[in-house]
Amino acid sequence: MTAIEKQDTISTSPIDHLLSLANEDMRAVDAIIIKRMQSSVGMIPDLAEHLVGAGGKRLRPLLTIASAHLCEYEGKAHHKLAASVEFIHSATLLHDDVVDISDKRRGKKTANLIWGNAPSILVGDFLFARAFNLMVETVSMGALEILSTASSVIAEGEVQQLAALRDVEMSVKTYLEIIGAKTAALFAAAAEVSAILAKSSPKKRKALQTYGQELGIAFQLIDDALDYGGFEMSLGKSIGDDFHEGKMTFPVIHAYKTAIETRDEIAVDFWRRVITDHDQRDVDLQNAITLLQKTDALEASLTAARTHAQRAIKALHPFKTGPWKTALVDLATFVVDRVH
Amino acid sequence: MTAIEKQDTISTSPIDHLLSLANEDMRAVDAIIIKRMQSSVGMIPDLAEHLVGAGGKRLRPLLTIASAHLCEYEGKAHHKLAASVEFIHSATLLHDDVVDISDKRRGKKTANLIWGNAPSILVGDFLFARAFNLMVETVSMGALEILSTASSVIAEGEVQQLAALRDVEMSVKTYLEIIGAKTAALFAAAAEVSAILAKSSPKKRKALQTYGQELGIAFQLIDDALDYGGFEMSLGKSIGDDFHEGKMTFPVIHAYKTAIETRDEIAVDFWRRVITDHDQRDVDLQNAITLLQKTDALEASLTAARTHAQRAIKALHPFKTGPWKTALVDLATFVVDRVH
Repeated sequence: MTAIEKQDTISTSPIDHLLSLANEDMRAVDAIIIKRMQSSVGMIPDLAEHLVGAGGKRLRPLLTIASAHLCEYEGKAHHKLAASVEFIHSATLLHDDVVDISDKRRGKKTANLIWGNAPSILVGDFLFARAFNLMVETVSMGALEILSTASSVIAEGEVQQLAALRDVEMSVKTYLEIIGAKTAALFAAAAEVSAILAKSSPKKRKALQTYGQELGIAFQLIDDALDYGGFEMSLGKSIGDDFHEGKMTFPVIHAYKTAIETRDEIAVDFWRRVITDHDQRDVDLQNAITLLQKTDALEASLTAARTHAQRAIKALHPFKTGPWKTALVDLATFVVDRVH
Repeated sequence: MTAIEKQDTISTSPIDHLLSLANEDMRAVDAIIIKRMQSSVGMIPDLAEHLVGAGGKRLRPLLTIASAHLCEYEGKAHHKLAASVEFIHSATLLHDDVVDISDKRRGKKTANLIWGNAPSILVGDFLFARAFNLMVETVSMGALEILSTASSVIAEGEVQQLAALRDVEMSVKTYLEIIGAKTAALFAAAAEVSAILAKSSPKKRKALQTYGQELGIAFQLIDDALDYGGFEMSLGKSIGDDFHEGKMTFPVIHAYKTAIETRDEIAVDFWRRVITDHDQRDVDLQNAITLLQKTDALEASLTAARTHAQRAIKALHPFKTGPWKTALVDLATFVVDRVH
């Protein structure tokens, strides 16, 4: 058995495959990230390193890199844009953790817990500004347009989510609007900017935008299901965060809707108490999980995520088959199947 | 006495003169500001209106407008850049008020006190993103470069200020570095972008950058002196905010340095207790003000501010005399003399 054959038999996840394809690019992206989060103000690299170096999946910059190859882009600007996308993502994470009063992210204490809210807010602002510095350096007005628009859409999605907190009557439509803005808009932009760099056709540009958007929705659907710990794998974040905040996500919308339809008054009263009245006791997270299981809410999340992942894959049809297309197809499958 | 003569005898402040010169432009800027802070997410315009509509002085966009005229710019893009500058400023104010835990701004309750920290953070992010949307629309890569760099410098200044909190040994040099970054960088950028739009010479561009930088430092020196209420006029903000946070500003640096030099051990111990140990009692603000008076600290602030305002005025030498240059000269005087 040759080394190559041996390698083929080792089971790797699609993300590992994509990471290995993109290895050289991602090293260039990492170098830019490390270099550009430096500052003479020591607290900035300390805090940024805690988050950016915390072993995130780098999914969004990977999308930029893979999309650039799919569009047969031959320059170097995709490295800066990929770093820029990761900076925007990191900035929103820092601000989210303050907004949500989170204490854990990627299995580590959150920056706001260690340094306090103020540095988290300000270093978020710094990374956001640095993201724009990097974009300017690529001299791509199209990329700037896409990423600045995505940034305002993300903020709108976050505010909409905040305004909808404790609204037990929230519809799936509103939920999809919120995650489409707060999460998927950056996935979409991360993919689309590469088509801009490569001067691809409007059709290919739209294809990548749709791929990213649908992938982002699938990703967030799974993320929200994982917050109830319903699958074997954890994301290293605390379980029940959304529940404790009274945040309506797909599983709870599904369980509450089912309770209404089946006239399960005990369940209806439970959700109204814990979400609308935000009156929660120690056992209520376990009660909630039991109700989610009873209504197959996590399976419903999985089904919904699969639908969006399929749409993402379908969107890639304008691109010809090849290793990068295969990697992106696998990625869409992985984003859903990572729960197993 | 004719109506015109009558008008001439009415005493107006330089800022009123500049505002009347720039009246038409500022109406266009205001229209852009109002339009672009809208969102289908209702909390965004509500909160933005509270801050942006709160009757701020619009000093920074005024600088962009006046600089554009000084450079004989004939297009319309300065309106969008002026609005963009005001959005960046508003975003930093929203975040500052969360960071400083302020309860009053421009004589009104701060947004974080009314809506909470989370919306203030997120609407700040939204306005910041919208600032970049507006810049992109001007298709000026030079303006994007200047304003994205200024944005990261501002964040660095804010973090540096945070890291230096309660450091009673802080030097005037460090203080000037901090306010040069957190405040003056945006004044400098607000003026410089207009030279870019007008394709002015590097000399004129540098002149406006210096004017803005020095004006911003003068402005912040006065602002920090006003925090101790030492002059007749108030800015509608609470007195003693900096003191209560343990923030070292020019007057305290001056008073502490004087106490050390004159071996006034009681005063040295006082400043160390209230700043370093952050052990403050109700009477301590009054005690601090008494010590500032004793060391002529506010007069020293005023003298320092005048020096920087003079440098600002001197920087304008490459421009020929005319109403806009006169207005900018008057503005530099006003920024200091507004305390009387």
